[in-house]
Amino acid sequence: MNELIGRVFNFEKTLFPASSELFGKLTTHGQSPKALMISCADSRIVPEQIMQAEPGDLFVCRNAGNIVPPYATLNGGVTSTVEYAVMALGVRDIIVCGHSDCGAMKALSDPTGLEAMPNVAAWLKHGAAAENIVSACHSDLQGKDRVRAITLENIIAQISHLRTHPAVAAGIARGEITLHGWMVDIHAGQVLGLNGDTGEFVPLREDRDLPVALAARSRFATEYAEAAE
Amino acid sequence: MNELIGRVFNFEKTLFPASSELFGKLTTHGQSPKALMISCADSRIVPEQIMQAEPGDLFVCRNAGNIVPPYATLNGGVTSTVEYAVMALGVRDIIVCGHSDCGAMKALSDPTGLEAMPNVAAWLKHGAAAENIVSACHSDLQGKDRVRAITLENIIAQISHLRTHPAVAAGIARGEITLHGWMVDIHAGQVLGLNGDTGEFVPLREDRDLPVALAARSRFATEYAEAAE
Amino acid sequence: MNELIGRVFNFEKTLFPASSELFGKLTTHGQSPKALMISCADSRIVPEQIMQAEPGDLFVCRNAGNIVPPYATLNGGVTSTVEYAVMALGVRDIIVCGHSDCGAMKALSDPTGLEAMPNVAAWLKHGAAAENIVSACHSDLQGKDRVRAITLENIIAQISHLRTHPAVAAGIARGEITLHGWMVDIHAGQVLGLNGDTGEFVPLREDRDLPVALAARSRFATEYAEAAE
Amino acid sequence: MNELIGRVFNFEKTLFPASSELFGKLTTHGQSPKALMISCADSRIVPEQIMQAEPGDLFVCRNAGNIVPPYATLNGGVTSTVEYAVMALGVRDIIVCGHSDCGAMKALSDPTGLEAMPNVAAWLKHGAAAENIVSACHSDLQGKDRVRAITLENIIAQISHLRTHPAVAAGIARGEITLHGWMVDIHAGQVLGLNGDTGEFVPLREDRDLPVALAARSRFATEYAEAAE
Amino acid sequence: MNELIGRVFNFEKTLFPASSELFGKLTTHGQSPKALMISCADSRIVPEQIMQAEPGDLFVCRNAGNIVPPYATLNGGVTSTVEYAVMALGVRDIIVCGHSDCGAMKALSDPTGLEAMPNVAAWLKHGAAAENIVSACHSDLQGKDRVRAITLENIIAQISHLRTHPAVAAGIARGEITLHGWMVDIHAGQVLGLNGDTGEFVPLREDRDLPVALAARSRFATEYAEAAE
Amino acid sequence: MNELIGRVFNFEKTLFPASSELFGKLTTHGQSPKALMISCADSRIVPEQIMQAEPGDLFVCRNAGNIVPPYATLNGGVTSTVEYAVMALGVRDIIVCGHSDCGAMKALSDPTGLEAMPNVAAWLKHGAAAENIVSACHSDLQGKDRVRAITLENIIAQISHLRTHPAVAAGIARGEITLHGWMVDIHAGQVLGLNGDTGEFVPLREDRDLPVALAARSRFATEYAEAAE
Ligand SMILES: [Zn+2]
Ligand SMILES: [Zn+2]
Ligand SMILES: [Zn+2]
Ligand SMILES: [Zn+2]
Ligand SMILES: [Zn+2]
Ligand SMILES: [Zn+2]
Repeated sequence: MNELIGRVFNFEKTLFPASSELFGKLTTHGQSPKALMISCADSRIVPEQIMQAEPGDLFVCRNAGNIVPPYATLNGGVTSTVEYAVMALGVRDIIVCGHSDCGAMKALSDPTGLEAMPNVAAWLKHGAAAENIVSACHSDLQGKDRVRAITLENIIAQISHLRTHPAVAAGIARGEITLHGWMVDIHAGQVLGLNGDTGEFVPLREDRDLPVALAARSRFATEYAEAAE
Repeated sequence: MNELIGRVFNFEKTLFPASSELFGKLTTHGQSPKALMISCADSRIVPEQIMQAEPGDLFVCRNAGNIVPPYATLNGGVTSTVEYAVMALGVRDIIVCGHSDCGAMKALSDPTGLEAMPNVAAWLKHGAAAENIVSACHSDLQGKDRVRAITLENIIAQISHLRTHPAVAAGIARGEITLHGWMVDIHAGQVLGLNGDTGEFVPLREDRDLPVALAARSRFATEYAEAAE
Repeated sequence: MNELIGRVFNFEKTLFPASSELFGKLTTHGQSPKALMISCADSRIVPEQIMQAEPGDLFVCRNAGNIVPPYATLNGGVTSTVEYAVMALGVRDIIVCGHSDCGAMKALSDPTGLEAMPNVAAWLKHGAAAENIVSACHSDLQGKDRVRAITLENIIAQISHLRTHPAVAAGIARGEITLHGWMVDIHAGQVLGLNGDTGEFVPLREDRDLPVALAARSRFATEYAEAAE
Repeated sequence: MNELIGRVFNFEKTLFPASSELFGKLTTHGQSPKALMISCADSRIVPEQIMQAEPGDLFVCRNAGNIVPPYATLNGGVTSTVEYAVMALGVRDIIVCGHSDCGAMKALSDPTGLEAMPNVAAWLKHGAAAENIVSACHSDLQGKDRVRAITLENIIAQISHLRTHPAVAAGIARGEITLHGWMVDIHAGQVLGLNGDTGEFVPLREDRDLPVALAARSRFATEYAEAAE
Repeated sequence: MNELIGRVFNFEKTLFPASSELFGKLTTHGQSPKALMISCADSRIVPEQIMQAEPGDLFVCRNAGNIVPPYATLNGGVTSTVEYAVMALGVRDIIVCGHSDCGAMKALSDPTGLEAMPNVAAWLKHGAAAENIVSACHSDLQGKDRVRAITLENIIAQISHLRTHPAVAAGIARGEITLHGWMVDIHAGQVLGLNGDTGEFVPLREDRDLPVALAARSRFATEYAEAAE
Repeated sequence: MNELIGRVFNFEKTLFPASSELFGKLTTHGQSPKALMISCADSRIVPEQIMQAEPGDLFVCRNAGNIVPPYATLNGGVTSTVEYAVMALGVRDIIVCGHSDCGAMKALSDPTGLEAMPNVAAWLKHGAAAENIVSACHSDLQGKDRVRAITLENIIAQISHLRTHPAVAAGIARGEITLHGWMVDIHAGQVLGLNGDTGEFVPLREDRDLPVALAARSRFATEYAEAAE
């Protein structure tokens, strides 16, 4: 038997008893997570570890490449999870979290070998903007530098997709939802955050303002009024 | 600022240094997770906690309702993540992990309020078999009992869907991939496992054999031969 | 004029009068077929002939490759025909019937020439699991042996797809619907049936039990109850 | 055991031996059917019986409502079967065959009860033109008369859909493919054929010309030449 | 700044005042266009110029290749625009308008270079029938002659697609809607019109009857009646 | 005959001769439009009139509601037209142009009556973000004020969708493409332009800078470099 699978036996004996008070509260009151994190399925990136989150803190959607398809008629798991997080749970922060050495980003950079994985190839089309931008603007980038650039642009692209989701767009316009774009660099031991105004990724540091990808922004009715002049 | 979001500042200062050796190894050698876990986005269910997994152990796909759409032309995030896990990473165990008090399962049981969440409603159609079975066979079940029954049948339904994915079907036929269906009960502090032969969910206990939903099963060429008689 | 087309002229003169009593009854009482047969469009395989069925006996869905797509949001003719057979007509047996020398299976085995038939190529993706299994497990099989293996695995794959249809899954769970997988060998003059427990195809013989692909299986409410231990 | 299912046991003992010469020829030479028939899954309508066809004569596609979706990017079973019949087998006649007392047509006429069959409801949208025409032009028609009108218009609509399939359109333009629209009336014991020029359905009689829905019609290159004037 | 964009500044100062009476009337009474024109996005083909139409005259749908997808479950912009024109505005004439030297038709004729434009390639599949017909019937046509033939056949194909839209089919059957197929030749300074009966395109001349692609044709209830004979 | 349709007879006699030099040049050299305009099919809004454009100036995509679906696997006419404009023609300005008194925007504001137009209803889901924002932020707005607000937000939403198209995103990142959001008010005789930085719509006036929705913005390779600190 797979040794990893066997560790589940300890849940009942050890793990659950140690957190029984917390689980009791979460069972009685239900969940009320503060944030939705969309990250990669990569085994090395554990959202709860990066955020030092406890059970109940973080609503988590994970898939190969931390992708959010643009809103469309044809629904899927990510769209539904975003809708549920915003409409049913009222989360106020949504984080798109990419990472270094990502297999999906390497495949976007160099699709060799994807013929055997037609669904991965199709899914990665949601990252085509990132690849197109890097190829168009910086055709000189190679290898790791190219993968890193695509990884960063992919986070920007998924933030753009997230803005097309009506529930998210309305939340931003109500001044309630903030979008974040992060990149976890497990080689450098850093988390970078996207500053949506400048388009740059900067290290997240306690002594600086947290950069945000897109800040909540209330609309005023006067903006819709017929121009007086 | 959302207090939870602020905890990320500690990644660089505290968390990464504490695991720098592990992350170094995972950066150098890449990931080689042993299992793929498909679980709910619910904030109370942290796959790595239930499995006591470390970074690098578990490839994780999470969405509202731990759903795996049946294989089809139209590709999405779950299908791609399964394909990548099997084809690119060679995982040998796939776990569909449901849980008690699941918001998605409650919505399957009673869709009141889903009109405002059309994508969630559409996504949950992938769990229609579970609801249909419980309604058809046990129309007397109510409230929590009905939700629990739907939760268990939903795990069985998603295992059925998983079998339609060619990469998974081929892995099983090669004798390499085993499917698991688990239900984490955070009220009772238990993890139940599906015994695919009997259709029953039984507690996972170290002193008993691990029940499996679908065991790997090699095919023999003789099975295809023209019947001699 | 096509000589075959011309034979229809006899319907009014000869054929209808000969069966007028049966057609009269079927017009008055409507149809109540006992089984749904999903078979290939191949001109050599006439379901009613194989079953010695009369008008009114057999609800029949035919397409290239006797394929049943997995259940999904996007509806098509096979899914609708299955749903109608189960929900409106209450059929209790569903037969997926493949056959020897099948053009669709040959195309799955060797797609040369499919470029000119893009829709056939796309449709046959619903048989990809069959091809993947045979290629993965028995890469040594060639020619007719490979086609035969794919034909058998395709029947198994379509049975897997059928299980994902909610109406079918509920019918099985109510103990009312049985699934059958047959292969008509027009060279050997044999019909083989899938034994779902062993995965083997065996000749159908009057003096033996009829093998079934998936037997009806009632669920008991106690199976959903919280484990007492 | 379902008595009907049991009749298959006779295939090997009785049926196959009686036709072994024909099956032998069909195995050796493969199939070369002259026509493609698209008819309803209804158990009372057996295409081979209506045409007095033998194994090898008729390529048959059957689904609820004898529907042919218009050609589109998203492929399905009917589209593929049509493509295979035309491109791989070279059939020269395509028959869309509706029938009296059709459950699908009744559901088009009065959708009460379709809520429980969402896929049938979606599939029948391919017959919406028929229902729209009858409702728009003859809102006074009721009951059986309305169903009959919809049944006839549905055949016309499916012929329209068939024309959008590139392989069919090219076959017609090459002067090789003829389209037929038939309605089998099992109450009156009649087969009606659509005269595409007049839009009327007339009884098929040996002593009259066979009415055709759309005759093959060769294009002349001169038709494309720049108008000389 | 793009000089063309700058011309918009004159709308307020010059253009609007000159037509203020017309715009006033169109604001007060809303639009009631007589015809829907589906033409190419090509900058050289201005529908209002060809028709000498004023604001309010012509409802216009434009896309690359003047394409109308066949009616299907999956909705898009052209289908919606047709539906709105017929159902909400009651247009009585629908014109599919192609043109000489069309980039989309050249790409249908010779897809070289389309790899970089996957969406254009997919969209042009709705013109596949045109290309198939010309290749099948007149494989000798080359260059401009081949493009011209495809352009004409594409107009015929889009008219075929238009007929599959239920609202259009019902309008024709009510005797209210007429379909037109035109080809604007900006080299010869001619507009050709499709005569649906003969399949030929002829110059539109004031002193001749306007050729129509498909004339409105009322259905009579007697056509549906059971054949008396 | 529809009087409007009859005006086409003048094309050959009057209109073409008057512009024969321009058409001659456009035939010889092909088109090279400077801008792509995406506007409504509404008969009162003639893009070439608003821009005082001549044949050859403006590549035009028109549909009900001036909608641009977000980029997705499933391709349609708008996506293809955008792709062709950017990739094949190299346009540098893309204008999304809404207008006052728009029937599509009224239907977004109040969907009463849309049941009869299911495709329009589905298409307008691409404007759901606009409706959601106005309903969420300004539930007090009624009638014309609500329609106006939705019209403005719809332009913003379509600009968001446009950003998800890879060819557009790459063009912006190369510093070559600028996005514009305009609203033509045919009652006030004004064209308003979206200032993407402030989110406000302001009158376009020759003596002021042209507001842009999203300016071209080159990326620098240094932005991708690992943070030096
Ligand atoms: Zn990754
Ligand atoms: Zn859950
Ligand atoms: Zn076959
Ligand atoms: Zn029928
Ligand atoms: Zn064109
Ligand atoms: Zn409009």
